[in-house]
Amino acid sequence: METLTVALGERSYPIHIGAGLLDRPELLRPHLRGEQVMVVTNETVGPLYLERLLAGLQGLRADRVILPDGEQYKTLDTMDRIYTALLEGHHDRGTTLIALGGGVVGDMTGFAAATYLRGVDFVQVPTTLLAQVDSSVGGKTGVNHPLGKNMIGAFHQPRCVLIDTDTLGTLEDRQYSAGLAEVIKYGLIDDPAFFDWLEANMDRLLEREPEALAHAIRRSCEDKARIVAADETERSGHRALLNLGHTFGHAIETGTGYGNWLHGEAVGCGMVMAADLSRRMGWLKPADVDRVHALVTRARLPTRPPPGLPTERFMELMAVDKKVLGGRLRLVLLQDIGRAVLTDAFDPALLRETIDAFASP
Amino acid sequence: METLTVALGERSYPIHIGAGLLDRPELLRPHLRGEQVMVVTNETVGPLYLERLLAGLQGLRADRVILPDGEQYKTLDTMDRIYTALLEGHHDRGTTLIALGGGVVGDMTGFAAATYLRGVDFVQVPTTLLAQVDSSVGGKTGVNHPLGKNMIGAFHQPRCVLIDTDTLGTLEDRQYSAGLAEVIKYGLIDDPAFFDWLEANMDRLLEREPEALAHAIRRSCEDKARIVAADETERSGHRALLNLGHTFGHAIETGTGYGNWLHGEAVGCGMVMAADLSRRMGWLKPADVDRVHALVTRARLPTRPPPGLPTERFMELMAVDKKVLGGRLRLVLLQDIGRAVLTDAFDPALLRETIDAFASP
Repeated sequence: METLTVALGERSYPIHIGAGLLDRPELLRPHLRGEQVMVVTNETVGPLYLERLLAGLQGLRADRVILPDGEQYKTLDTMDRIYTALLEGHHDRGTTLIALGGGVVGDMTGFAAATYLRGVDFVQVPTTLLAQVDSSVGGKTGVNHPLGKNMIGAFHQPRCVLIDTDTLGTLEDRQYSAGLAEVIKYGLIDDPAFFDWLEANMDRLLEREPEALAHAIRRSCEDKARIVAADETERSGHRALLNLGHTFGHAIETGTGYGNWLHGEAVGCGMVMAADLSRRMGWLKPADVDRVHALVTRARLPTRPPPGLPTERFMELMAVDKKVLGGRLRLVLLQDIGRAVLTDAFDPALLRETIDAFASP
Repeated sequence: METLTVALGERSYPIHIGAGLLDRPELLRPHLRGEQVMVVTNETVGPLYLERLLAGLQGLRADRVILPDGEQYKTLDTMDRIYTALLEGHHDRGTTLIALGGGVVGDMTGFAAATYLRGVDFVQVPTTLLAQVDSSVGGKTGVNHPLGKNMIGAFHQPRCVLIDTDTLGTLEDRQYSAGLAEVIKYGLIDDPAFFDWLEANMDRLLEREPEALAHAIRRSCEDKARIVAADETERSGHRALLNLGHTFGHAIETGTGYGNWLHGEAVGCGMVMAADLSRRMGWLKPADVDRVHALVTRARLPTRPPPGLPTERFMELMAVDKKVLGGRLRLVLLQDIGRAVLTDAFDPALLRETIDAFASP
């Protein structure tokens, strides 16, 4: 087992990473302040792991909520199920919410914890690669709105994150690849040595080799934690680097309707598009664009948006993105592999060229 | 005009109190960071003051949302109207929400600001006495849930509070008295000299004499700010003193359905009940219970719960209150006028006696 501490002053917390951790409740219990817990999971993950998790929580008053599975349920309406379960179970301010599942479960559980009685504790037990490398660090919680993704939410840090790499054994291939997109992203942002390592070890990761997995997850969490620590509530621009590929990706997700493309798939394609625009600006060498394209492809991720998203619509969807500040679109682009920057200094005509080049007719 | 600063480190903010402040936009503008504002008001207050407020915001992109009026609309469903208006107006992270109205508008606007894009600025322009002396200080925001009042929310501090005492001229008597309940509360908690002043000046307050009003509002805000500064997120017990009368009051509000009794009316009655229980415990002298009863009565507030709330039901409703910690009910009781304490060291039989004595058959 490896343990990483996310350093955020009095809100610091540990991330434990390893095989079989679901059966090690002693890692979790020091972080439960009261005698009540509410495990939030979904219809897919619950049947696989809920009973194992609950077995380790004996002696506590443990309730559960089972949510429907899917990004389309990440809404205020679904939140009400969590609030109702908490109130029906008379959960007080000493309760701890435990998120058992992927990013959707984690985001909603964290938001419920941020807002129930104006804030209670929560713990993450992420069971998808995406959630393990993305939602474990950063404290972002929230839900979607019909008019935009992740528009409603709060910053709320977990008390502990427990990553059992065995849970990836049951993850379907498409979800697994979506997680690899975020892993690749960390290499691209500011960790070129990790990008090199990924090029050398992508086959091991695709075979879900435990040692390779533990390394990739740990390195991803470390990379993200370093960026987040410098900008916890996204007030300076630094944290925005984590949105590499995301503005393009959000346009794809919104344009196709939530739930059709996985978030990680959209980000994978978005990174390739960001690399393409970076090349058109004269920043990234053509050979490095090829490296990005090749690694995303090897991770079995799409590199083109779906049909039915003409350039005009694509640009309109990018403009609604919340990173529009003072009306100007800002994008994370690449000056090199491992050197991402947030900028609004790009020629909109070049952005249009990139989208034209990728859009299906 | 008087100005009070609520000292909360980097989240400190001013409260301006005086007549005619709605026409002094220069007080507000330094606190608007971006070029966009969203004024949130309701059907009652909007027609009275919205245009005057907007007249002072020329040059900004100012949108508005008009909510239905009433505690029964303080829900997640109503929140969605604010989120939709913000998204349709393409409001970005630099926007500022302005709450123009009473406590319901303030609580929902603050919660929308706390959660839109994971947090934007907001400003309060409270137009009821209750909101002026209660919601102006403390940073509590949120909505009700069918299973309990204020169960969903966040702590989020305003950037500025603008209190125009002229707005009380249009406030109906019942709402005005409800505000006086909270004013009396500050005297009871830890400001016996203010309680004495209220006994001497209640007639002036009932006539809404501007000088008396400005003094009462300022003193109430100061009293509350002192308590809140010591315990911003309600983690120690100190801030809980502000709940004097509230646990009894919440039982009345929930038991009769939100919107039938005003919050302040329920708190007024709750303070009398808390005084009664304090006397039964041997803490408060009978003559002081009479002083509490007399001042609440002079403020034209009810001192008995409504019919139809038998003792068993009343106690059940108190138990669901969120101040139940670790399953034990804690109440704010009076050791003296101006000396409130949070305690679970009361005999439940005495609590039952108090409720029996007040409950209608």
